[in-house]
Amino acid sequence: MSDRPQTPLLDQITRPADLKSLSDAQLTQVAQELRQETISAVSVTGGHLGAGLGVVELTTALHAVFDTPRDKIIWDVSHQCYPHKILTGRRDRIRTLRMKDGLSGFTKRSESPFDPFGAAHSSTSISAALGFAVARDLGGVVPEGLGDAIAVIGDGSMSAGMAFEAMNNAGHLGKRLIVILNDNEMSIAPPVGALSSYLSRLYAEEPFQELKAVAKGAASLLPEPFREGAKRAKDMLKGMAIGGTLFESLGFSYLGPIDGHDMDQLLPVLRTVKARATGPILIHVLTKKGKGYAPAERARDKGHATAKFDMVTGEQKKAPSNAPSYTSVFGKELVRLAVEDDKICAVTAAMPDGTGLSLMAERYPSRCFDVGIAEQHGVTFAAALAAGGMKPFCAMYSTFLQRGYDQVVHDVAIQRLPVRFAIDRAGLVGADGATHAGSFDIAYMANLPGMVVMAAADESELAHMVATAAAYDDGPIAFRYPRGEGEGVDMPEVPEVLEIGKGRMIQNGKRVALLSFGTRLGEVKKAAEALTAKGITPTIADARFAKPLDRDMILNLAASHDALITIEEGAVGGFGSHVAQLLAEEGVFDSGLKFRSMVLPDTFIDQASPADMYNVAAMNAPQIEAKVLEVLGVASIGEKRA
Amino acid sequence: MSDRPQTPLLDQITRPADLKSLSDAQLTQVAQELRQETISAVSVTGGHLGAGLGVVELTTALHAVFDTPRDKIIWDVSHQCYPHKILTGRRDRIRTLRMKDGLSGFTKRSESPFDPFGAAHSSTSISAALGFAVARDLGGVVPEGLGDAIAVIGDGSMSAGMAFEAMNNAGHLGKRLIVILNDNEMSIAPPVGALSSYLSRLYAEEPFQELKAVAKGAASLLPEPFREGAKRAKDMLKGMAIGGTLFESLGFSYLGPIDGHDMDQLLPVLRTVKARATGPILIHVLTKKGKGYAPAERARDKGHATAKFDMVTGEQKKAPSNAPSYTSVFGKELVRLAVEDDKICAVTAAMPDGTGLSLMAERYPSRCFDVGIAEQHGVTFAAALAAGGMKPFCAMYSTFLQRGYDQVVHDVAIQRLPVRFAIDRAGLVGADGATHAGSFDIAYMANLPGMVVMAAADESELAHMVATAAAYDDGPIAFRYPRGEGEGVDMPEVPEVLEIGKGRMIQNGKRVALLSFGTRLGEVKKAAEALTAKGITPTIADARFAKPLDRDMILNLAASHDALITIEEGAVGGFGSHVAQLLAEEGVFDSGLKFRSMVLPDTFIDQASPADMYNVAAMNAPQIEAKVLEVLGVASIGEKRA
Repeated sequence: MSDRPQTPLLDQITRPADLKSLSDAQLTQVAQELRQETISAVSVTGGHLGAGLGVVELTTALHAVFDTPRDKIIWDVSHQCYPHKILTGRRDRIRTLRMKDGLSGFTKRSESPFDPFGAAHSSTSISAALGFAVARDLGGVVPEGLGDAIAVIGDGSMSAGMAFEAMNNAGHLGKRLIVILNDNEMSIAPPVGALSSYLSRLYAEEPFQELKAVAKGAASLLPEPFREGAKRAKDMLKGMAIGGTLFESLGFSYLGPIDGHDMDQLLPVLRTVKARATGPILIHVLTKKGKGYAPAERARDKGHATAKFDMVTGEQKKAPSNAPSYTSVFGKELVRLAVEDDKICAVTAAMPDGTGLSLMAERYPSRCFDVGIAEQHGVTFAAALAAGGMKPFCAMYSTFLQRGYDQVVHDVAIQRLPVRFAIDRAGLVGADGATHAGSFDIAYMANLPGMVVMAAADESELAHMVATAAAYDDGPIAFRYPRGEGEGVDMPEVPEVLEIGKGRMIQNGKRVALLSFGTRLGEVKKAAEALTAKGITPTIADARFAKPLDRDMILNLAASHDALITIEEGAVGGFGSHVAQLLAEEGVFDSGLKFRSMVLPDTFIDQASPADMYNVAAMNAPQIEAKVLEVLGVASIGEKRA
Repeated sequence: MSDRPQTPLLDQITRPADLKSLSDAQLTQVAQELRQETISAVSVTGGHLGAGLGVVELTTALHAVFDTPRDKIIWDVSHQCYPHKILTGRRDRIRTLRMKDGLSGFTKRSESPFDPFGAAHSSTSISAALGFAVARDLGGVVPEGLGDAIAVIGDGSMSAGMAFEAMNNAGHLGKRLIVILNDNEMSIAPPVGALSSYLSRLYAEEPFQELKAVAKGAASLLPEPFREGAKRAKDMLKGMAIGGTLFESLGFSYLGPIDGHDMDQLLPVLRTVKARATGPILIHVLTKKGKGYAPAERARDKGHATAKFDMVTGEQKKAPSNAPSYTSVFGKELVRLAVEDDKICAVTAAMPDGTGLSLMAERYPSRCFDVGIAEQHGVTFAAALAAGGMKPFCAMYSTFLQRGYDQVVHDVAIQRLPVRFAIDRAGLVGADGATHAGSFDIAYMANLPGMVVMAAADESELAHMVATAAAYDDGPIAFRYPRGEGEGVDMPEVPEVLEIGKGRMIQNGKRVALLSFGTRLGEVKKAAEALTAKGITPTIADARFAKPLDRDMILNLAASHDALITIEEGAVGGFGSHVAQLLAEEGVFDSGLKFRSMVLPDTFIDQASPADMYNVAAMNAPQIEAKVLEVLGVASIGEKRA
């Protein structure tokens, strides 16, 4: 505890209303203390540091000026919400961030009335704020009341189509609505896209000092009605007016840019907006991700996400890794193949590091495309690359590919275009919790006609599957793999091209066959060892393919065992359901088969370690073992059950 | 054939290259003849008329100036592609549009090399064009070669986030790429959103005649390098320059607006662009939907979609309807409930008529929101309305809800917000074909924790389900129903609120239980009658809920019959898979059950009547009957099988 920073003023703040009685100078001090407290907390927990440090002043100013929780602050993606959590009654638990049974790393409705709308995927905040604004004007009733609706959205998030859709709708409806564009020229990766260049130009043309002076006087420049006033103010002040037109085109009043680390700018602007705004207004705030913590400011990702770290040096305390991550295996294999085949190219939606494509981007920048936070566009862009004779890999997290689902159906699957989907973060992901779980992709991909769906059981399998996807040109193909390290298996010298629709036998046993799809195979093997010790040696098979199924293998397993149990890191409707459909159609159930399908449970599972989460999901070795004993009717001997 | 228009010049055009030898005046005549031929063809087939009529000049000009199929024209949504099909070697089949075994009503890769990228959902064209442009520059190889990439996109489609994402990416990449904004101030419904107002302002400020004169001289105004030239030209010509900034903000050169019905403007502008463009350019073309056919021009929807019609009067030849459409039942029930409950509100994504919400919009305009072609935003907006104490119905077609899937997961389901999803066009839809099939929603909704999923067996059931959804406040709830007319059943005076998770027994029989989810119930009943005549009286049940399942009813059916057959208008992974999972977990298969799950087959089914499509899918009465006989091991007596 001696490491904790001195925060005398912050210590007096137990809820946002306490800020109301402070002077502007004291609010500035609160913000400074909030920064230190945030750094201290994240040094203990790890998590998203840079985004929060960029908004301590904005967070303090918003809570000081507006009346939360009646007024709704909606933090886009909410990577930046830790300071907000500290100010809104959760400081006592802030060092449990992202831990099992601790605070979520994101805003969460069930956690606090100060989190009116949870977020973890990008670019939802303007839609959400508009919904609150409309509900307010229609007389919606909620316990905290409905006041102002304020979306705080980063420049990266603003590039997503969904944000544009919301702006377009908000500008049309004309309701009072506040959008704060938190422009730090940085999302998770350096921002890409024309919008980003545009925003840079917005403040490149005038010296920043002038703007600063202007913003300080903003309150006096804005007579009623506000929008008229804002326009006049801008006309008067060339420095502020340059280039607001993109937002004004969409029906928003534009105010800015202002320095988001200067309370003397933030407070008067927010007060004026609160007093005077009548329609939708966009406040353009410039901040620095990682502000005020040198190791974060220096880092390439501005301290976006960090492990626990030493506060003084910033050195991260990462556990030693025993095996390469799946992500890195994918990235390396892709580059290896790209060396041999100049038609191979890759698409990521703002996650070059997260998907391992940064290797490809370094080696072949002209063949690697970061399209921004734009999964819809990214998928269709990849489809057209395929139609144009290229071999695109579309690398996205399972949970984010949901954003491009219609494009997978309409542009890829119906046209049977050979897009290779590299689906990272499949299954449960740990500290990011339910919002990032890759639970649904097996179901939503495998029911598409013509789609090939694979899952890697280990990192060596993943290498084979990357090679298989590169070689397959008859239609779309997807392969999924989890977050984190591999199993530590030997890697192949040259990965094989797998036969489409063929699984592999792992071990031959009796009575029960365990048919795994994905990385539960490791747990299946452990369970099998325990069972063997009890005199039951299960057969083990790795399906490799959810589609097309290895019909022969599966029907043989069914015919030669009393029980067949499938296991997969996904929700019902996926691999096990396809197996059940096959068995039903083939009449296997007619004469009886002890068939079970182990899938993710029908709940959203809160953050914990992946192993803990799979414990909750009842999909670890002891639970697989217990399932076998139960199915075979053998008395269970004190197994752990979730 | 005597009704056919005289088209002497068009008759000489067998492929686009034939246009190259014609004078500008002749091209103008071709366009006129193309208009008449389009009207004539659609009068026979029905289909999308207005959009095509708006682009006959543009279609002619594009094919005359560019070198298709090497140059890729990508028609957004492709409602407007009929004239293009006529010019590209498909005139002989144009009167088979949207019919079984006929031409698709949309562009389709498998149909013609002149359709480089099929479309039927909105706003994919810029992404696709960018993919072709990049493939070209990377040396992609396709049989037709890779030249210019040209997206033709309407102002309505431009409002979708995906189009913005693509513009943002294209502006960043800077590749030569042509986007033609076909601005007819009309999508399917009158356009909404701030972008639409913005576009109107673009040409409101200057008399149109001046623009026309300007555009005619465009070629001479554009020295190399083109982008510099374009800028200078615009600076010189205030009329052209106003407001191009939104697109310029995104890195595009902006040219326009020009009159899209004047070949003397279109041809020189396209020729200049072809000769000079170096980066991404947007050409703003003004057209009139339904242009040149008075009945379409007069119609509220500008002849968007029509039945067969009389060419002289424009009168549509609609078959008499025997029952209200499901869509209208939904619309009326919603209004009935909205009268009683002022918290009920509704969201549509640019389909007020198609979803039946126009009734709500008339009666309660302040509670009905057309968000534009913006399913992502629409779903999250609805989620926030729910969080703000309202009772939102989010009415979308099954196939379009795919666009908002991540928002359903992330914003609605994880937060367990009571959004009511009215899922129209569930199952196979007929003439719109595979791109519009609602095949996947049961699977992709029912595997979300906390989601309630219903399907209506007939229009009376739909009324009950609307009432049930309105009354249910414990989380999200969805109900699906098909395109077209109901079964003609009596409607309830006051619909009931159904018990969540309870099915209903339709008839008690023996040996086999038919468990239907959705409107296949009618076919199930017919099959049962035929079976009864053969001495087999099946039990029939209507599941009503795919989630939560009526466990008791299903387990009882399984226990008391030799065979249990589920049937649903959806792909594998949905209702039948959930039933299979229940039966497996409960050990019902252990001792044998003849279980079958009839689902849509693993193919995309081409357009035909819905009944024909369900024949292909093997889900009509004769095929249900045959399945029962097969499962029971009774010799089949000449049943029709697909």
